[in-house]
Amino acid sequence: MKYPIELIRLISFFKKLPGVGNKTAERFAFSILDWKNEEIDNFANQLSGARKKISSCVVCGTMKDSELACDFCEHPHRNQTQLCIISSAKDVFSIESTHMYQGLYHVLTGLLSPMKNLHPKEIGIDKLMTRIENSSVKEIIIALDSTIEGDTTALYLKEILPDDISVFRLAFGLPIGSSLDFVDGSTLSRAFMGRQKF
Amino acid sequence: MKYPIELIRLISFFKKLPGVGNKTAERFAFSILDWKNEEIDNFANQLSGARKKISSCVVCGTMKDSELACDFCEHPHRNQTQLCIISSAKDVFSIESTHMYQGLYHVLTGLLSPMKNLHPKEIGIDKLMTRIENSSVKEIIIALDSTIEGDTTALYLKEILPDDISVFRLAFGLPIGSSLDFVDGSTLSRAFMGRQKF
Repeated sequence: MKYPIELIRLISFFKKLPGVGNKTAERFAFSILDWKNEEIDNFANQLSGARKKISSCVVCGTMKDSELACDFCEHPHRNQTQLCIISSAKDVFSIESTHMYQGLYHVLTGLLSPMKNLHPKEIGIDKLMTRIENSSVKEIIIALDSTIEGDTTALYLKEILPDDISVFRLAFGLPIGSSLDFVDGSTLSRAFMGRQKF
Repeated sequence: MKYPIELIRLISFFKKLPGVGNKTAERFAFSILDWKNEEIDNFANQLSGARKKISSCVVCGTMKDSELACDFCEHPHRNQTQLCIISSAKDVFSIESTHMYQGLYHVLTGLLSPMKNLHPKEIGIDKLMTRIENSSVKEIIIALDSTIEGDTTALYLKEILPDDISVFRLAFGLPIGSSLDFVDGSTLSRAFMGRQKF
């Protein structure tokens, strides 16, 4: 016996969510059937409405509610001389949750990857350069992934950014709470290279 | 910095799904923002439509597509003398996936639980009795949960079912692939009680 076709369709949508396999998608779909009709409709409306009501700041590219001003660009207390470069608008939330940074952000639209045909223009580096030229930024922190694409993009940025701006990259090393036994070789090498006076 | 309010609302809906915590709900919501608008709308429509398009068979209570006949009650090849009693329409899919059973089903609307004010009438036992009286059922298999409520309901059913019907309950014992070390005492007792000639 097959599931009702409507249930199969619902399961197939849940399976598109990250990390959700067949069994989990089935559990989600069955649990939806136990919700109140009104609650399901609210969920459906929120789902189709959320993306339309969330927009990107035209200056820095971070997410914001469409009708509101950007939390960063138009915030009087953010440090206008610091700029953090990230490759996804989601990263802002991780960085903000550390409470370690009070400057501005700039979201690239991806990472350099000749294989995927992503060149400087595609990831918005010209827009970034224009923004920097017309700003009072003195310090740039490159907060890109520690992957081949992230490293390539970071190196490229370092080359083209103006010499009068200090360019930093996030530190690499042991994650907090990790045991040396379980840390991979590359991380350990970077931790050695970046060793700090104690 | 807080998430945009629309994102917070979407996250709160995902958190209502079983086993989904804050982090997972955030990942789901972020991944939705990467979907195409059209795909999101399809998901939303499926979500609000699925429950309305899935109905229960008025005779046996299993799920079916509204416009179609019940896969069991109206299927010519199902064994009309066997009836399997379950407490949730979802259980049908687990049982069918074993391919061990070819009879009919009857879904109770819950399990007896005086604490939750669930008495025989509330879980539809009178409807079950009427159905049995007007049927050619000779064998009943009680496939209820192995919990206090499940046991209570099974015992109650055994008492009131007509004497000319053979009543069975699913076997209790070691799960396949389990090691004796990790099996709890009650399961092991039931496995001993139900030992079979080898």
